[in-house]
Amino acid sequence: MQMSNRISSFQCSPIRRLVPYARDAEKKGIHVIHLNIGQPDIKTPKEALDAIRDFDLDILPYGLSEGEGFLRTALTRYYKRIGVTLSEDDILITTGGSEALQFVFMTLCDPYDEFIIPEPYYTNVATFANIAMVTLRPVTSSSDDNFVLPSIKEFEKKINKKTMGILLCSPNNPTGHVYSPEELRSLLELCRRYDIFLVVDEVYREFCYDGKTFTSVLSFPEYQDRVICIDSFSKRFSMCGSRVGAIVTRNKEVIESALKLGQARLCPPLVEQYAAAAALTVRDEYIENVRAEYERRRNVLIKLMQRIPGVRCNLPKGAFYFVADLPVDDAEKFALFMLRDFSYEGCTVMFASAEDFYVTPGIGRNQARFSYVLNEDELVMAAKCLEEGLKAYRRDVMRIR
Amino acid sequence: MQMSNRISSFQCSPIRRLVPYARDAEKKGIHVIHLNIGQPDIKTPKEALDAIRDFDLDILPYGLSEGEGFLRTALTRYYKRIGVTLSEDDILITTGGSEALQFVFMTLCDPYDEFIIPEPYYTNVATFANIAMVTLRPVTSSSDDNFVLPSIKEFEKKINKKTMGILLCSPNNPTGHVYSPEELRSLLELCRRYDIFLVVDEVYREFCYDGKTFTSVLSFPEYQDRVICIDSFSKRFSMCGSRVGAIVTRNKEVIESALKLGQARLCPPLVEQYAAAAALTVRDEYIENVRAEYERRRNVLIKLMQRIPGVRCNLPKGAFYFVADLPVDDAEKFALFMLRDFSYEGCTVMFASAEDFYVTPGIGRNQARFSYVLNEDELVMAAKCLEEGLKAYRRDVMRIR
Repeated sequence: MQMSNRISSFQCSPIRRLVPYARDAEKKGIHVIHLNIGQPDIKTPKEALDAIRDFDLDILPYGLSEGEGFLRTALTRYYKRIGVTLSEDDILITTGGSEALQFVFMTLCDPYDEFIIPEPYYTNVATFANIAMVTLRPVTSSSDDNFVLPSIKEFEKKINKKTMGILLCSPNNPTGHVYSPEELRSLLELCRRYDIFLVVDEVYREFCYDGKTFTSVLSFPEYQDRVICIDSFSKRFSMCGSRVGAIVTRNKEVIESALKLGQARLCPPLVEQYAAAAALTVRDEYIENVRAEYERRRNVLIKLMQRIPGVRCNLPKGAFYFVADLPVDDAEKFALFMLRDFSYEGCTVMFASAEDFYVTPGIGRNQARFSYVLNEDELVMAAKCLEEGLKAYRRDVMRIR
Repeated sequence: MQMSNRISSFQCSPIRRLVPYARDAEKKGIHVIHLNIGQPDIKTPKEALDAIRDFDLDILPYGLSEGEGFLRTALTRYYKRIGVTLSEDDILITTGGSEALQFVFMTLCDPYDEFIIPEPYYTNVATFANIAMVTLRPVTSSSDDNFVLPSIKEFEKKINKKTMGILLCSPNNPTGHVYSPEELRSLLELCRRYDIFLVVDEVYREFCYDGKTFTSVLSFPEYQDRVICIDSFSKRFSMCGSRVGAIVTRNKEVIESALKLGQARLCPPLVEQYAAAAALTVRDEYIENVRAEYERRRNVLIKLMQRIPGVRCNLPKGAFYFVADLPVDDAEKFALFMLRDFSYEGCTVMFASAEDFYVTPGIGRNQARFSYVLNEDELVMAAKCLEEGLKAYRRDVMRIR
């Protein structure tokens, strides 16, 4: 029996495809430090967990396809606090940011239409684009200049008749770049000129460091018809398993069109929507503490990584990932080596090779994405493992003496 | 700003698109009896709700892309009880049966490939097929002979080089037909002959009436490579809002390929997976009582409907829907009339017009799908409303005197 050509061509997620090897290592008693995935060890707000424990319906019924009213209302209040005025009708609740992205591609693009995306980018976007048969046109940002936005001219060069929009992630997964108001405005102006959309994944909105403030793409009402924001509760409230996200836009046609897809899949998970609404009632202190904690963790891991011979990485400005150049031939092979053939004091490290975070073939082969969502002790041990692992890999696999 | 041609061509779900009118009616104080959607008023098992209330993690983390191990193990035990032996690796947990169907289309079909489906069929399949750019080839079953499976020859006629499989739903939504072991075997034989898949949505498996037993497509091990079962907890345990479903197949390549899509969307909702696993521990008595209750409700509503002048419907054998011929020009117009322009003793009825449950244009315009998941009092009132509504519609809209 033959699978489809397209599914055969889809990548296995570089973030998750080595999970079986991690499990084998764990079976051997090795402690695997997971820097491959943005799964924080920070506690979910008690308010959110209590909302789950207080679930008091005696039927777990279908919810509304557009998401529960109480959650959409709670979100308008949350946005108000960050300076963005919205109505409930500007919000479509989705099953995670993942579904939001898929809905947006399907809604804006016909097959073979194009989206421009700075690379490296969140690798699962490739699968969502493939599902919708959307072609991603990359604009390459470079580790040499800490992944700042390539010049507007680079974006403009990629625009053609099939271009439906530009997709950003800010703060960026995987690079940590935070787009400035000026960068956003110049992109919005470009989008207006060519009558295309600007879609911004802002799920890491709160995680900007070094005293920087964040500007949402929703804060430019003069461009509101062409602005779509992807949002999610996963990272903000350390509730990744809840699968509650949103499409946020003042363009009514986008919401109405995406709702067709929403109606077909019936509704987002209901219990987690109660948890999400409750999470929005937590005091700003919670988020502030989480932010400060991630900033500390970033500082710890980056400093240690920069000391490892041959490793190159810069201080990311936001989110909780960074891309590092490693002194290896192939970061994927090295990742596999770390899980299958290596341990240091009973530990090893799992991370995501970065090649699949690029559209352009051949870039990023020696790069990897690391997340710094674990506590300092784990990060210190991870850096030590990586240092020793690199030595062993270069000696035993690359045969460098 | 232009939406994509494809999203513009997608239907709004006939099950949900009139919801705004229902809401308006409710605002006017009218009690809307929802026969449009299979949202049972039967209680979710206490075990499932308790599992939600007992959720004791202090982080709501990402789950596994393939679903939690404890749930997959619990499912193998459940299948064992219905006579089907499976391993955990034969099960991929999905975000509802809806996602399972989407994954199957993407996994088996390239764009413009085809699936054969008896019509009328569960209308949201059309949207999932559209997303995957799969063409549905209908084999028409008729209300005249209570929607039995059309002859195998009709299926064979539709097979061509692009045919990747046949999709059934048994017990059937919307017709209530339950496929017999003989029907399944002859379809499986056909599938073997043409080397295609048989995909069966069995989410209503437990709801077979009149003492009939159910045969799962998983009970034919000799065809196991080409058999895929779609499953869900929604209906079985009256937990539609949980969005937990599954792809079940002994074809390893299908599971591995679909997992690529699973990894991209990260994981199914976590809290509900605990609820789902707990639901599987309920005594058979729960399901038996639910089944008996639906059988009673079916008998009540069908009897009353059959007495309404001009209405034609047969006793469905399973699930909790039936398709009725109505004495109207256009069931969609009549559905809108019922919500917008009609009430009887402060009540009205919402139902799904059936035209969009057909691929073939022009069939089913005077048909509607009704669900009988509500309690008897509601069903009695619903039948009365329908009878009076039909009189009013025929008099005031169709101008029949």
